[in-house]
Amino acid sequence: MGAQVDTDSILSEESVVQVHNPSGRSPIVLVCEHASHHIPRHLNDLGLKPQDRQSHAAWDPGALAVALNLSRLLDAKLVASCVSRLVYDCNRPPEAKDAMPAQSEVVQVPGNVGLSAADKQARLTKYYAPFRTALEKALQATTNPVVVTIHSFTPIYHGKPRSVEIGVLHDRDTRLADAMLALAPGDLAVIRNAPYGPNDGVTHTLKEHAIPAGHLNVMLEIRNDLIATDTQQDTRATGLAQWLTAALEHISKTGHAA
Amino acid sequence: MGAQVDTDSILSEESVVQVHNPSGRSPIVLVCEHASHHIPRHLNDLGLKPQDRQSHAAWDPGALAVALNLSRLLDAKLVASCVSRLVYDCNRPPEAKDAMPAQSEVVQVPGNVGLSAADKQARLTKYYAPFRTALEKALQATTNPVVVTIHSFTPIYHGKPRSVEIGVLHDRDTRLADAMLALAPGDLAVIRNAPYGPNDGVTHTLKEHAIPAGHLNVMLEIRNDLIATDTQQDTRATGLAQWLTAALEHISKTGHAA
Repeated sequence: MGAQVDTDSILSEESVVQVHNPSGRSPIVLVCEHASHHIPRHLNDLGLKPQDRQSHAAWDPGALAVALNLSRLLDAKLVASCVSRLVYDCNRPPEAKDAMPAQSEVVQVPGNVGLSAADKQARLTKYYAPFRTALEKALQATTNPVVVTIHSFTPIYHGKPRSVEIGVLHDRDTRLADAMLALAPGDLAVIRNAPYGPNDGVTHTLKEHAIPAGHLNVMLEIRNDLIATDTQQDTRATGLAQWLTAALEHISKTGHAA
Repeated sequence: MGAQVDTDSILSEESVVQVHNPSGRSPIVLVCEHASHHIPRHLNDLGLKPQDRQSHAAWDPGALAVALNLSRLLDAKLVASCVSRLVYDCNRPPEAKDAMPAQSEVVQVPGNVGLSAADKQARLTKYYAPFRTALEKALQATTNPVVVTIHSFTPIYHGKPRSVEIGVLHDRDTRLADAMLALAPGDLAVIRNAPYGPNDGVTHTLKEHAIPAGHLNVMLEIRNDLIATDTQQDTRATGLAQWLTAALEHISKTGHAA
């Protein structure tokens, strides 16, 4: 018998979204919208310089590694985008002007300049819609899900150092954020809605996938110099897993935040 | 309405195995037996020194990152163990003496010394059986699957440097390995059955999950200094994806290896 290989599908289609540990039993569903700096080949690097293609403008360095560790420690599902936020930012609604930004901090994105409505619709259909669907499915497969999104931020932004180490972000549902802030580890600079907040348009996933359904939710922003190495990612994930668990236990026992 | 949170499951059970991208459409099913250096808490670090717990004795550094990139590029399922090979080596059958080694290269593993039959059975049931089941399920969900296992090896072993950069390993079914070797990139030191081979007992997954069913299969060993950084992992995965695809296309067209 000759080997039967279906080569048609190989390399013809890359993943746009990946669901890790889809049968994870935790109520927590992890989300990593900025997991990857990957730019599909047909987009010609969006015209970016090599050093910009892997900079924090293109992704959240370390966030996926921390999220994968959390997924293991909590036995939680993890939904992660497989394309750069510069291709489509899965934490933005289609109408946001930074969903396909022509500039991000100091990085120009030539491939996003002058996109037509059809170009934008094509990006949305190809890169955002599957992410949205995968996250919806993961939430439907989970009883009383808790949405936790994992991000990282650069220690220096527009030339200014940032002292915040972990940002606990929320929109109008503050329950899980309040509990986490009350139980924050004393050795970390943990700040509410920093270095961004709801007014910067960064709570899209929470507003779209958690708040309307009443699911507990929080967005965690970790300064990326704290999660640069394998050891840091591991240690940080262990701390976050315990912290998240303590916050949820508190809410469960008292019915409200600490 | 108070928040309903099922906290019982949180942190009570870690993942033992993770399946990434389980709906991936590629015939390739990726396997990473040595993906993690994680030692579950109740095993008390197996008595290892901190520097040994994250050394190559405990895992294959870089292998999971390359495998995740390959999973994305090929849209392939990936089955990865979540525990250190020193807890249970998922690329070994239960009867192998290095399934739960008391020594690995120069590293002593106190927590594996003098294990009783019951201790060994407990490790097997808890850490190997779920891995085996997850891999079987992934293969059953794939039409004419191709099994590709991703490993890394240390550049210096017992004090000797190794010149091989990528090892293409096989057991008695040489088809995919032959095709890959024939199409190997000229700028890499690619060697058949190096730095290990079937006589070292490293082809267990191939023998257990691919050869009896007639699935094409290969084990790839990458020298870990070539996949230490994010950029290297990305670049190497892109090269491997193209190489694997070319080898499978060749087999598909000719019915035999190049």
